[in-house]
Amino acid sequence: MNIGIIGSGQVAQTLGGKFADLGHSVTISSRDPGRPKDRGEWGVIPSADEWAAARRAEGADAAAGSFTAAAIAGDVVVNATAGASSLAALRLAGAKHLSGKILIDLANPLDFSRGMPPSLTVCNTDSLGEQIQAAFPHTKVVKTLNTVNVNVMIDPAQLGAETDLFVAGNDTDAKAWVTEHVLREWLGWPRVFDLGDITAARATEMYMPLWLRLWGAAGTGALNIKVVAAQP
Amino acid sequence: MNIGIIGSGQVAQTLGGKFADLGHSVTISSRDPGRPKDRGEWGVIPSADEWAAARRAEGADAAAGSFTAAAIAGDVVVNATAGASSLAALRLAGAKHLSGKILIDLANPLDFSRGMPPSLTVCNTDSLGEQIQAAFPHTKVVKTLNTVNVNVMIDPAQLGAETDLFVAGNDTDAKAWVTEHVLREWLGWPRVFDLGDITAARATEMYMPLWLRLWGAAGTGALNIKVVAAQP
Repeated sequence: MNIGIIGSGQVAQTLGGKFADLGHSVTISSRDPGRPKDRGEWGVIPSADEWAAARRAEGADAAAGSFTAAAIAGDVVVNATAGASSLAALRLAGAKHLSGKILIDLANPLDFSRGMPPSLTVCNTDSLGEQIQAAFPHTKVVKTLNTVNVNVMIDPAQLGAETDLFVAGNDTDAKAWVTEHVLREWLGWPRVFDLGDITAARATEMYMPLWLRLWGAAGTGALNIKVVAAQP
Repeated sequence: MNIGIIGSGQVAQTLGGKFADLGHSVTISSRDPGRPKDRGEWGVIPSADEWAAARRAEGADAAAGSFTAAAIAGDVVVNATAGASSLAALRLAGAKHLSGKILIDLANPLDFSRGMPPSLTVCNTDSLGEQIQAAFPHTKVVKTLNTVNVNVMIDPAQLGAETDLFVAGNDTDAKAWVTEHVLREWLGWPRVFDLGDITAARATEMYMPLWLRLWGAAGTGALNIKVVAAQP
């Protein structure tokens, strides 16, 4: 399948690499695909172009381009940008190129401008997932994967126990397809809760403050939660 | 031990009953201890006075009174009011009667004024726990138990698997005492994460939207989460 990824950072490269390893055709994207990403104290990661060249050298079907190129290339599109710049990046990608497609939104609207831990740029009575759905009404936005870091996304078994993912979105068929294929088959997530329409994106985005505290308390970002419920 | 509970609703009565069953002296409280609580479609529950009389008839050491009476009676005080009225109730209880004491805050700042599911009256860069700590600087506020419903609070084993609770607060000794005695010994919670100072109340209060969606998806409020982390 052709997968377009909006973004070219750590999440885009790691998730894109996983999809490419599975045999998919992957296009990651950037405002400037030739520029390496300087993440300050976290180091420098390769440019989108360098990433794609390295994957192709390994035999993968990988490309890099503009946001528009990724949106056009993808039968399914993934928003892997930082939440604070997601709407701008998706607008550059172009509503017409996203129209009718599933957009997997795994971004969180983290606001680092007030120090650590980050707060959220939007929450409570709105969410990034809803803002994206409202801005792109002809796109099927499926909010998911935003409750784990990218290393857990692509390898849930590393946690040593089955844990849970969540999906939210207005299009039932789109959620079912993402759940069955992307989450279960491709990434190996056996347990997925459907939380409801796209307003449920509030729930998983507002879980970020707890996730960030758990990261501190557990001493690792390789963590997730398992929902335990009594039989109703 | 003498336990004062600010509030006389379902949470106060159920948790107070558990503490009384354990042999503690419990005072629940209300603006009007003689008035039964009409919770609309959820039915009517006994007044604070009726609750205390029924517990005493069973041989328990239970009383009902004003918020001030409960604050004076308690060596430890519990905030079991609805979050939207917690600050008003605690002010009526009186800062001088809460001074130097541990206040276990298990309220969530749910805002039902905009329909269901509720939003929060405060979140993101502040929290109810912080507002209470700021309003009562000589009280040791420990935020905990707000991530489960009261039936799970008093009987975590019903879930059939060990799940997690969280504590947040500025006073390390107070958190340790609550964790060891109230959570582990009295209520039976073996796993408790210390998330940090009282600003971490944001994390557990902002988990409420996810809890509410999980309640819908799981079909029961008898639920909780277990944190699963790889070894760091």
